[in-house]
This record gives sequence, structure tokens and C-alpha cells, in this order.
Amino acid sequence: MSRERLILLVEDNDDDVQLTLRALRLHHIANAVKVVHDGAEALDFLFCRGAYADRSPDELPQLVLLDLKLPKVPGLDVLRKLREEPLTRRLPVVILTSSNVESDLAASYDLGANSYIRKPVDFTQFMEAVQHLGLYWLVLNEVAPPAGD
Amino acid sequence: MSRERLILLVEDNDDDVQLTLRALRLHHIANAVKVVHDGAEALDFLFCRGAYADRSPDELPQLVLLDLKLPKVPGLDVLRKLREEPLTRRLPVVILTSSNVESDLAASYDLGANSYIRKPVDFTQFMEAVQHLGLYWLVLNEVAPPAGD
Repeated sequence: MSRERLILLVEDNDDDVQLTLRALRLHHIANAVKVVHDGAEALDFLFCRGAYADRSPDELPQLVLLDLKLPKVPGLDVLRKLREEPLTRRLPVVILTSSNVESDLAASYDLGANSYIRKPVDFTQFMEAVQHLGLYWLVLNEVAPPAGD
Repeated sequence: MSRERLILLVEDNDDDVQLTLRALRLHHIANAVKVVHDGAEALDFLFCRGAYADRSPDELPQLVLLDLKLPKVPGLDVLRKLREEPLTRRLPVVILTSSNVESDLAASYDLGANSYIRKPVDFTQFMEAVQHLGLYWLVLNEVAPPAGD
């Protein structure tokens, strides 16, 4: 099992993608971000299917940053699927969303999200939040090997 | 449901307690720490039993910082119990331990820990880690209401 310092960013909003990459670049971790634009692509990437059939499933990210409102497969369904599969059951998943609906918050934790962060509307706060969470999950947090390994 | 900016620190090592409080004090969040010294006391506090029978169960912490090697009830058993009960099922629990045993890491995530951090041996790194995690979970992360509310 190789574990890169990789963040999988699942985000369909291009402005938010650019802001996130810019924030991480300030801490020299932008090169470690793979961006996918919908829930189906996120699952294809992690489970090495479709356009990602050539990837090795051993190369798991250290963090999945998951938006909730996503095309094709919604974020909560992506999360449910990740928690069902031994390969991804222990993968840290942080919900990063503009939703302030309490049912989204509750459902995210019930489905096994590790953390839930509301995207700050303010530019500076958004940048700081992304930097903080990137360092927390890439540097401080310890990941576990996949279940069944 | 009132939600204070409270951290429940479950730690039997007095040196680590003092270091943790000192680190949080630098960021003015030390006054928001309740220290308990074993796993049984942690459960009594959260479920308002024994010496804590007068507490209101509505006053949940925003974060439980849980050591693994604890007297009376081990950390993993505390975690299992917290995930079984609707009141505490969605409570953020960060394992903060000196254990570098891979089975502890795997078991922690399997039982629903939100994050796992190894206590840095180096003093400065320990201080920085505690500050970073305190701010992450108290300021950035959004908590959900208890299940069944």
C-alpha cells in the first residue's frame, strides 16, 4: 500500500476548485491535489474504473474533500459507497460544502464523514480554512491501512 | 441543545494533561477544557452519571480528545460506547495517543473515530499539534445535533 500525500478534491464549481488549489499552493501542497468534478468520477477514480481503469487501487489519497451538491452521484451517496467498501472504509472524508442545512450535517456524520466544514463565503476565511484543513489532514492525522489488508 | 466550546480531554498522564492545557492556553482556549482521568469517568461525564449526575446531558463538548491506554475503561471501549448511544454517536472523537500500533489505528477508525493523532515526542511539536487540532475542531469543524433530536 503506497500512501501519497494526495488530496482527492470532489468539486464541480470551478471557482471553488481554483480557490482551493490556490490556498493549498501557498503551503506547497497544491501539487498533491487530484480534482474530479462529479460523484461518478470520484468513485471511478477511487475504485479504478472507467477513465481510471489503469490506476492502481493501492494509491489511495490521504484525504477526500467532498462537496455535497454534485452532478451524477450526490456527495452523500459517494460517502455511503466509500464506507461500504473495505478499500475506502477508513479513508478520511471531509465534507466541504456551502450547505447549512442541518439534515445534511446529520446525514454526513451518520454516514461516516470524519469532519464537516462549511465553505466560508469570505475569500480570506476560505483560504485560511482550506490551508488549515489541508495541513491538519495531510500532516497531523494518521491514516489507517484499508480494511482486510 | 447548548453547545459550548468545550473539549473533553480523557487522559491519565498528568504531564500530557499539563502540556495540552498549556498549548491550548496559548490560543486562549484552555478555559474550555474538562479533564477526566480514566475511561469510566469519561462515560460518567458524558452520560451524566455517578459524580456527574447533576450535569445536563444537553451540554455536550465539541470535541472528545481520547487517549487509548486508560485506567478502568480502555479508550477503544469508550469510543465503542459513544458510537452506540444516540446522544454521542455524532460527537467528534479524536484519538490522541502515543501508540504506534497499526491495529490500534485500524480499530479506532473501524469504531468510528473521526481522526487519529500520534502524540509527538518532541515538546514543540506536541504543542503545535495540540494547538492545530484544537483550532481545527473548535473553530472550523461543524458539529451535528445528537441523533434522535
